[in-house]
Amino acid sequence: MKSRRKFIQTLTVAGAAATLPINLIAEQMEKQKMIHQVFFWLKDGVDVSDFMKEAAVLGKCKTVDKFYMGTPAPTEARNVVDHSYQVACTLFFKSIEDQNVYQTDPDHLKFIERNSNKWSAVKVYDFVI
Amino acid sequence: MKSRRKFIQTLTVAGAAATLPINLIAEQMEKQKMIHQVFFWLKDGVDVSDFMKEAAVLGKCKTVDKFYMGTPAPTEARNVVDHSYQVACTLFFKSIEDQNVYQTDPDHLKFIERNSNKWSAVKVYDFVI
Repeated sequence: MKSRRKFIQTLTVAGAAATLPINLIAEQMEKQKMIHQVFFWLKDGVDVSDFMKEAAVLGKCKTVDKFYMGTPAPTEARNVVDHSYQVACTLFFKSIEDQNVYQTDPDHLKFIERNSNKWSAVKVYDFVI
Repeated sequence: MKSRRKFIQTLTVAGAAATLPINLIAEQMEKQKMIHQVFFWLKDGVDVSDFMKEAAVLGKCKTVDKFYMGTPAPTEARNVVDHSYQVACTLFFKSIEDQNVYQTDPDHLKFIERNSNKWSAVKVYDFVI
């Protein structure tokens, strides 16, 4: 009986040790602030201002922390600088989890459904900060 | 004499009309907030943490308003997402002029001189927000 109790005790400790790091990792990941950087290349004839009015909804999605939208700046034309896109969106999230939620936010999905025919290319960069 | 005075008056008004918009445009441009977004692809064997310590100086350049540095986030691997770079830097400027000054900031130039042998590619996106 004693050995059975000891066995159960060992199992419990082992179980805690096995799950704890996963919880900690998950918690750590949840806390990682990140930037979701998107560039849109619009099809010929698409009105940039109209598109930006549509894209403004992205900043209203509930897990977005900060939202900036812009157009290429008239900076020096250097080889390393890409000025060829039409619209840039910079979204800050308080966690990777928040960004994942944003990907299926109904307003985000509605934006894609309404506007995906307007762009010829999209490029995304996601990075923790 | 009256017609000469009228002529001078007309010239003055025309002159003001011609110069005013240029001043306004210049003022407007100076006030345009912008993001200078940089991605670095480091050569094999370059230590990312060491490189980030070096790159941190970029945020100290005097015309930089806000500075964020990061590494690719473990978000979903989709066709549109580029996770292939090693380091991302997001620099906010209060004006296009401030970004132009940053390009020749001694600390920025020193960073390039000390570290340009560490990257195989750099990509920059400049956009007004």
